[in-house]
Amino acid sequence: MNGAESLVRTLVNGGVNLCFANPGTSEMHFVAALDRVPGMRCVPGLFEGVVTGAADGYFRMKGTPASTLLHLGPGLANGLANLHNAKKAHSGIINIVGQHAGYHIGYNAPLTSDIEGLARPMSSWVRTSPDARSVAKDGAAAIAAARSSPAQIATLILPADTAWNEAAGIAELGPDQQRPSYSPQAVETAARILRSDGERTLLLITGSALTEQGLLMAERVAAKSGCTVMGPTFRPRMARGRGRFSIERIPYVIEQALSTLQKFRHIVLVEADDPVAFFAYPNKPSLLKPEGCNVHRMTAWGENSIAALEALASVLHASAKDIKRQTQQELVKPTGPLNHTTIAQAIAYAIPENAIVIDESISTGRGFFSATTAAAPHDWLQNMGGSIGFSTPLSIGAAIGCPDRKVFCMVGDGSAMYTIQSLWTQAREGLDVVTIVFANRIYQILRGEFDGVGAGEPGQRALDMLKIDRPTLDFVALARGMGVPGRAVRTADEFNSALAEANAESGPRLIEVQM
Amino acid sequence: MNGAESLVRTLVNGGVNLCFANPGTSEMHFVAALDRVPGMRCVPGLFEGVVTGAADGYFRMKGTPASTLLHLGPGLANGLANLHNAKKAHSGIINIVGQHAGYHIGYNAPLTSDIEGLARPMSSWVRTSPDARSVAKDGAAAIAAARSSPAQIATLILPADTAWNEAAGIAELGPDQQRPSYSPQAVETAARILRSDGERTLLLITGSALTEQGLLMAERVAAKSGCTVMGPTFRPRMARGRGRFSIERIPYVIEQALSTLQKFRHIVLVEADDPVAFFAYPNKPSLLKPEGCNVHRMTAWGENSIAALEALASVLHASAKDIKRQTQQELVKPTGPLNHTTIAQAIAYAIPENAIVIDESISTGRGFFSATTAAAPHDWLQNMGGSIGFSTPLSIGAAIGCPDRKVFCMVGDGSAMYTIQSLWTQAREGLDVVTIVFANRIYQILRGEFDGVGAGEPGQRALDMLKIDRPTLDFVALARGMGVPGRAVRTADEFNSALAEANAESGPRLIEVQM
Repeated sequence: MNGAESLVRTLVNGGVNLCFANPGTSEMHFVAALDRVPGMRCVPGLFEGVVTGAADGYFRMKGTPASTLLHLGPGLANGLANLHNAKKAHSGIINIVGQHAGYHIGYNAPLTSDIEGLARPMSSWVRTSPDARSVAKDGAAAIAAARSSPAQIATLILPADTAWNEAAGIAELGPDQQRPSYSPQAVETAARILRSDGERTLLLITGSALTEQGLLMAERVAAKSGCTVMGPTFRPRMARGRGRFSIERIPYVIEQALSTLQKFRHIVLVEADDPVAFFAYPNKPSLLKPEGCNVHRMTAWGENSIAALEALASVLHASAKDIKRQTQQELVKPTGPLNHTTIAQAIAYAIPENAIVIDESISTGRGFFSATTAAAPHDWLQNMGGSIGFSTPLSIGAAIGCPDRKVFCMVGDGSAMYTIQSLWTQAREGLDVVTIVFANRIYQILRGEFDGVGAGEPGQRALDMLKIDRPTLDFVALARGMGVPGRAVRTADEFNSALAEANAESGPRLIEVQM
Repeated sequence: MNGAESLVRTLVNGGVNLCFANPGTSEMHFVAALDRVPGMRCVPGLFEGVVTGAADGYFRMKGTPASTLLHLGPGLANGLANLHNAKKAHSGIINIVGQHAGYHIGYNAPLTSDIEGLARPMSSWVRTSPDARSVAKDGAAAIAAARSSPAQIATLILPADTAWNEAAGIAELGPDQQRPSYSPQAVETAARILRSDGERTLLLITGSALTEQGLLMAERVAAKSGCTVMGPTFRPRMARGRGRFSIERIPYVIEQALSTLQKFRHIVLVEADDPVAFFAYPNKPSLLKPEGCNVHRMTAWGENSIAALEALASVLHASAKDIKRQTQQELVKPTGPLNHTTIAQAIAYAIPENAIVIDESISTGRGFFSATTAAAPHDWLQNMGGSIGFSTPLSIGAAIGCPDRKVFCMVGDGSAMYTIQSLWTQAREGLDVVTIVFANRIYQILRGEFDGVGAGEPGQRALDMLKIDRPTLDFVALARGMGVPGRAVRTADEFNSALAEANAESGPRLIEVQM
């Protein structure tokens, strides 16, 4: 068996049976091995940002890494933006990048570049296999790195001759790393803070604490101690909807964030970080907590926050009977013109039971979060790295990981265009994804940021750089071009009906919401 | 004036009056400065690969760099593949990348990444401005770096606070660098080789030698000395067509390249490099020259090859009267079904006078080169870095640089999908670009490479990774979605008529050639 086959077999043997791929010549032996090794599902993307974003989505829903296959330095480069987002989400990915044969690199052929240099900024683990006999064991090391706690982007670079030369066989994985537990002392300290000054304490939770069970425990702690529970502005995944503890998140807009946090004297971090501004702005702070606020870390990313929260509830003698739920809002099926309110209502109304909601709705979606607290139970996924063009690829991986769940992919028109090629893979794989594009024909977030950074009122030439209305994008045509049926809507009623239509059947669809 | 304005003014003052842009929050002060500084044309792209590829196309046609504007690390990452292609083409670009305010970087906000680390593999010059007072002088240094000989990718990283803080004013550029001339000794040596063993000498020319004047001189040298003149497999720009010296290029397929080069005992390099294989293949060499072949460099990239060839012709007493032109082939307007031959004939027939032809036709276009020697005079641009998705962005920059010339952008369906967003910018700017997509519904080049790397015959699962026919892409719908009129053709007559239609009017169009 050659090096490529030894890698594919090691991956499958190690439980990595999914590969998102955009291969080239140097990866052909890996592709050829697919014919000989059963058990590896290979999903092609027409652009590498689709491939890496899909792997992120898969990890977020399954908690276990998929692999990718990318062609040399430029192929990796095209995938870096979504690797960046995945890294910031603490997702695990086994990112496999072809390289020229070792002896060929020195000749500076057209595709030669510094692949390790490109990989490092967006990977936590980087290795170039030195020879065919090392490929399997390097692959096993990459799996272990990707699966560590916290999970990692592990980039394995595979020179072509290591793929075609004779290998040593499959490499077995070592025993799974023990998932880090939590520090009982950190829980004791948190309990002391909550007992003494609960009303002025913020329990800031993310990661595994945002599962249904984590939220349940957090709710008990809040009910008993009087603390406020919030999430960070963005969260990789969060259980939400009817019957679940509904929490607010730190607002994106810096003035609102400062005002929201002002009352707290203590912040207890559960996997979250000390809150910072998304961007710097002239004469505005980077750190969002009020002066004198004491920050205590209860769990770090990847620790067992559910167990820690259970311990905290137990120390505080908090239980289900402490909880006094308010009556939840009624869902409203909107009518009339489309605006931010009716759009949010229509989505909340339509989210199906157990849906996966991917949110890159940016400015249009500012109100979606509060509007959907009473929607059917769902998971809500967001962009952790701020590089737009993440949602449509993410939907692919989420849908492949959870074929029985409907995916709502909500995306602004500007964001959708970075990785619009995702629609083709959705069609090819028959994925149950409803892509909802909010067509306001402007990078509206930047219109706000222009003001936020103190640049004043944009003139015509500046506005020309923010608007994308000349020509208007026809997303229904773009979807049709990639085999996805689409529909444009201009009223709340049309939007309701398009959503109902999408929910009635499985398979990819696109709705262009014309605002 | 703030740092951003000082940079924009320094660019305009230094003759850089074009910026391809995909900005974000950290670049808003640059965008705001556009309202205050006249003379800077800003062209938006919906994806950063469009932006960087357009800058490459502009440089190739104008010989002077444009600027780009990209958003932080991920925005740069999305532009890297086409920066790679531009770097390998020796194009000059002033690549401006926003960064968080200096004091904000340590807080690890979502978009924080190692921007310098990302920039270095695809740039020859990288600098982060330390403060607002340095921005203008760093900008001037970037212009000088981009304009040096050979030209460079100069990446200037602009922390947001250097953009909004008070600056020192415009920085003046130093005097233009003297363009390197050539070595008279190297010319003498070349002359000696050509005199003593001309018939077995290959004059391998690229760069400025592929202009009309350079080719004219090379033709005289060949006529006098009996040497063969060829170009490398890929060339950044080449003057071709009726009335011009028609030369062959080193074949891409390694066996053909070896066989073509076998007869030579000497290779004289004019800006070209010692020929190497594009990829490594098992049991095939990387270097293509025959054993014992002596390689002599007459000019390096960026040297004055026209003057060197003129000197060489003069030393050899070669003149116009030595040239005996063969009768050029007749152009044929094909009829019947579409195949590689009729497609090539239709294109050769349709290339308008003084056109810019951008060639990313990959496997479909293997025969285009020889079929177009008698076409109307044109420039032929190719991918130097091997990262596909370069042609549609390149067409934007070429068309903006040369608004009076028609651009034919020939691209495979697989390649077209990497940066399909280019069509929107073509429509927005009303560019005179005819995008011709060859829809064979497979990465056909990989089908060949699969065999070439010795992976045998692909089975169904491997073939699934090469084919893009499920679903088929509808490029006419994709074009319509971005405001570009399109037409699909299935016969040679339809193709002829679509090309004639496109030539009859100015403005962007797309032709999908269904094979």
